[in-house]
Amino acid sequence: MSHRIVSVSVRDVRFPTSLEQHGSDAMHTDPDYSAAYVVLHTACGLRGFGLTFTLGKGTEIVVLAVEALADLVVGKSLQDIVKDFRGFYRLLTSDGQMRWLGPEKGVIQLATAAVLNAVWDLWARAEGKDPEQIVSCVDFRYITDVLTEKEALDILVGAQEEDRMMKEGYPAYTTSCAWLGYSDQQLKQLCTDALKSGWTKFKVKVGANLDDDIHRCRLIRQTIGPNNTLMIDANQRWDVAEAISWVTSLSEFKPLWIEEPTSPDDILGHAAISKALAPLGIGVATGEQCANRVMFKQFLQASALQFVQIDSCRLGSVNENLAVLLMAHKFQVPVCPHAGGVGLCELVQHLILFDYICVSASLSNRMCEYVDHLHEHFTSPVVIQNAHYMPPKDPGYSCEMLESSVQRHQYPEGDTWKLLMNK
Amino acid sequence: MSHRIVSVSVRDVRFPTSLEQHGSDAMHTDPDYSAAYVVLHTACGLRGFGLTFTLGKGTEIVVLAVEALADLVVGKSLQDIVKDFRGFYRLLTSDGQMRWLGPEKGVIQLATAAVLNAVWDLWARAEGKDPEQIVSCVDFRYITDVLTEKEALDILVGAQEEDRMMKEGYPAYTTSCAWLGYSDQQLKQLCTDALKSGWTKFKVKVGANLDDDIHRCRLIRQTIGPNNTLMIDANQRWDVAEAISWVTSLSEFKPLWIEEPTSPDDILGHAAISKALAPLGIGVATGEQCANRVMFKQFLQASALQFVQIDSCRLGSVNENLAVLLMAHKFQVPVCPHAGGVGLCELVQHLILFDYICVSASLSNRMCEYVDHLHEHFTSPVVIQNAHYMPPKDPGYSCEMLESSVQRHQYPEGDTWKLLMNK
Repeated sequence: MSHRIVSVSVRDVRFPTSLEQHGSDAMHTDPDYSAAYVVLHTACGLRGFGLTFTLGKGTEIVVLAVEALADLVVGKSLQDIVKDFRGFYRLLTSDGQMRWLGPEKGVIQLATAAVLNAVWDLWARAEGKDPEQIVSCVDFRYITDVLTEKEALDILVGAQEEDRMMKEGYPAYTTSCAWLGYSDQQLKQLCTDALKSGWTKFKVKVGANLDDDIHRCRLIRQTIGPNNTLMIDANQRWDVAEAISWVTSLSEFKPLWIEEPTSPDDILGHAAISKALAPLGIGVATGEQCANRVMFKQFLQASALQFVQIDSCRLGSVNENLAVLLMAHKFQVPVCPHAGGVGLCELVQHLILFDYICVSASLSNRMCEYVDHLHEHFTSPVVIQNAHYMPPKDPGYSCEMLESSVQRHQYPEGDTWKLLMNK
Repeated sequence: MSHRIVSVSVRDVRFPTSLEQHGSDAMHTDPDYSAAYVVLHTACGLRGFGLTFTLGKGTEIVVLAVEALADLVVGKSLQDIVKDFRGFYRLLTSDGQMRWLGPEKGVIQLATAAVLNAVWDLWARAEGKDPEQIVSCVDFRYITDVLTEKEALDILVGAQEEDRMMKEGYPAYTTSCAWLGYSDQQLKQLCTDALKSGWTKFKVKVGANLDDDIHRCRLIRQTIGPNNTLMIDANQRWDVAEAISWVTSLSEFKPLWIEEPTSPDDILGHAAISKALAPLGIGVATGEQCANRVMFKQFLQASALQFVQIDSCRLGSVNENLAVLLMAHKFQVPVCPHAGGVGLCELVQHLILFDYICVSASLSNRMCEYVDHLHEHFTSPVVIQNAHYMPPKDPGYSCEMLESSVQRHQYPEGDTWKLLMNK
């Protein structure tokens, strides 16, 4: 059966999360968690759902970029696309005119992710895949100096570990307990509640004020005890030297990693920070704003990170996430995906399960971020049990939203926004 | 006198250059040279003109991004902006919600460049500047590990070499003679004509087909002779190993540099290529798709380039170009700006004159790209004499376009496009 894509719809969906300081960090103080939400419609009535995550303002720009890419998608059949998915990826990312707007970064890459996430959803609903098909989705351009197609295939046919995941799920950590905007009382209550629900790994936002960070890290370390895991996240707040001294000042609280200590583009800076913090037993994690496989390649080559934080919407969808998972495996660096936002948990659970089952077969130093937020807007929300992601059972890439939620939160015409604007 | 900005207009202006294969290279085969063209209007009637260069499709996305940034500009006075230009730069690049779309790269950075280019034009029309003011425009965030504010100031007060430029102008090289789409006959004729007009430095596009490249390089080297300068440009066509072997095959034609051998994001890849080609006397040049100061910082730290190709519209306007000029000086790597496109020559001549007069005071291995193309659409087009850029005399940043040209080429409603679409 041919699934010919006859139209692409895209909507600007925003949740007014800034009203309650959910999601606030040292660099993004007032995010309204949002998405450019894409639906592919096929001639036979099957639909594919995809999205990319944004922070509110500017979502309309990503929506327009999706509309520009739609011209390259409409009229193609799913079969044609997956027969040469690498070529299709390159069609979107290397259009002779639009390539200038990236390449493979920023708005145009976010839009590419939204469109391709919908293609993957469609494909997942339509049929299964094998390792050769998986490898054929990866664009190896610019990464053959560290990973060849042959090596990738050897990795994929090696590991196959499904049972454990089906039973126990994939370990998660929580970021929901310690956003920058929260009070001491809130922090303590949230951590205590989380411990009761089985959480053992906690991430704290830092970077705005050192004294405040010391105070908050102490409070949280006291609440969770010495044996649970603490991570800290600066959201790119520092220069290199500042990052090293600031994190050194927080080392007594034994964080496993410092996340995004400086510019997401600064590979050599992260390498310097990694080197300086290694004696303290603190690793460096980054990736949620790392836009493509070429940047991740270098982070790995330069030993600039000890935890790879892939993002389901920043990279060019599954295609490029596959490239990064495979390179991380080659360098033996654990992958701990970025999630939260809108729909990121729903998407990324597929990637990390794939990583375990088909690539790494290891949980050593591995865990997936979880934020307890906005899942109620999805038709197949993530299932968390005992602080683990349970494998999703519904077909697809899990980012179909409830139509009622989409309509209510469409910007600016949805009821939620009409009400807020009339206040 | 207060120059309060009361409105920002932005238009999508496109020239159908793909019809004649002007501008074609190994990765961008059919560019329609275009611009998001910005005008700032002040209460007192003064206007500031700015633009960013694009390749056609997707220009509407950059236009929408400029409109999103306009909210941060309207209502401010020029004086308020320049009093804390670093802060204003950061306001545009670090908006808590829009930052997610970059940060400082892709569409949102191109839009930032267009807006800030217009602010610089306005400022240039309104008043002069001194070194302290210049340094106060630079956002040193993420680059203090290689350049401090104090060092920058010391560099700026050191050099002051104006006379030579006023007399001789700044040396240029031409890219107009050897686009990929041209025939042998065209190549030979264009080179011969250029030699007669005083040109001594020529750039050739390569990367699509090795035999064809050998043929074209031989033809051009024969035409221009052994003592003139030849550069080659692959526009990101290769992986790392491929770049090294391909350029090695072209080394007999003695190119000064290979430009954009691989992904513009691959700092370590460029470093490997630089190292491999150094024994052949061939340098590596890149930068036209290098989106921010943090990337340039690393290219310099890693000895990954021997020629810094700043871009007036890819980086965040003059502010960020200043940071790169100063870092390049510190690392003693010559700056040879990217130009061509629409208005890039007009803009970049100011940057390279500034580099000579206030930073480097050297012409060693330095030259500025020139493409003889679309200048007739500007109110103060560049003046080239004997293959040199002559210093512009009109106040401002030289990117005001003729209103008639803008109207005729507005996309899709201008006459040029209406005619083409009805064909």
